[in-house]
Amino acid sequence: MTTSTLTNEPSPEIEFWFEFGSNYSYLTVMRIENEAERSGVRIVWKPFLLGPIFQALGMKTSPFVLQKEKGTYVQQDMVRQCAKYGLPPWVPPSTFPRLGVLPLRVALLGEDQPWIGAFCREVMLLNFARDQDINTPEQIAPILGKLGLPVADVLAQAQAEATKARLRQQTDEARSLGIFGAPTFFVGKEMFWGNDRLEDALLFAARRKDIRPAER
Amino acid sequence: MTTSTLTNEPSPEIEFWFEFGSNYSYLTVMRIENEAERSGVRIVWKPFLLGPIFQALGMKTSPFVLQKEKGTYVQQDMVRQCAKYGLPPWVPPSTFPRLGVLPLRVALLGEDQPWIGAFCREVMLLNFARDQDINTPEQIAPILGKLGLPVADVLAQAQAEATKARLRQQTDEARSLGIFGAPTFFVGKEMFWGNDRLEDALLFAARRKDIRPAER
Repeated sequence: MTTSTLTNEPSPEIEFWFEFGSNYSYLTVMRIENEAERSGVRIVWKPFLLGPIFQALGMKTSPFVLQKEKGTYVQQDMVRQCAKYGLPPWVPPSTFPRLGVLPLRVALLGEDQPWIGAFCREVMLLNFARDQDINTPEQIAPILGKLGLPVADVLAQAQAEATKARLRQQTDEARSLGIFGAPTFFVGKEMFWGNDRLEDALLFAARRKDIRPAER
Repeated sequence: MTTSTLTNEPSPEIEFWFEFGSNYSYLTVMRIENEAERSGVRIVWKPFLLGPIFQALGMKTSPFVLQKEKGTYVQQDMVRQCAKYGLPPWVPPSTFPRLGVLPLRVALLGEDQPWIGAFCREVMLLNFARDQDINTPEQIAPILGKLGLPVADVLAQAQAEATKARLRQQTDEARSLGIFGAPTFFVGKEMFWGNDRLEDALLFAARRKDIRPAER
């Protein structure tokens, strides 16, 4: 629980709910650490599974797949958004949405660790800049190695029952919070949806130093 | 057709596709004239009916109604967005989405007229700041009067068969362009969806002075 890491001193916080299969989560993952630091806001990383959320809402997969017109548009939009944020040129993933259960479990283990941001960025680049699968130990191990982590230990812990259960719980929590897409931000009870709302959410957090997600 | 108003001199243009029942179109209507002027971009106003578009996509009404979670979120978001843009406090419409066929027909008549922006703002304020119906002559007449227009003439022309047919044609055009929501902007062949993309679309238009929607 994130509450265990809170100090008595009020510090502005933003909950960042994200999924490795989500292209708009990609945009946020690549920039949130810089933006949050600039705003003096602490990030509470909240990896979760989007698939069960969509299913609970009656959708078999991403709306970008279900709605052809929207899907076509999103490809145009991603080209421009990647350019806007100085990211590598957009490469439409040959599989979409990609399953990212394994890296989500690793992210759960790392949610309070200094490597969480760098890990998430590497996974996202694999999916959205290099069009690679992200759900196998073979793809994730090199990232962990590059970060100087004990690869076998982290992978074993990520695949332990307790971690699997935590990811399911976190996904249930997302659903109970009314989350319907990713990325989603919470500042206290206020929900902000979409990469386009990152700046608004950070500003809201910075202005309301006394409100933390834990107090929701 | 908008082509008749084009001069030989290339001037950057943005097509603005909007609906009076759409709350995110409201945000754009209230600010697009200022923003476009600042960017030196001409607005091509494109009123259309969103209902037939949703129906063609298999939705009986707005996704904000069909998806309870998204609808709940949108109310939160609109409170904050109205504050951000300095608009009157958000009043959740007691009817949503409101039918706005009559004012859309008036907007078609006024698409090239100097009063188009002011007219659209008044209709939007009626719907989203004063929670009033917008589809009756009784509601629209005072707006036309305030703008110094010949009220009876405009209302008669708006309800003429030719105008009704034009609105249907423009809605068909929206569908053929792949429009799936409102507001939507076009700069040449590039589609931008949502009030959040207005700045990107204007920047894109200003940088590509040689490309006009008519050349699509």
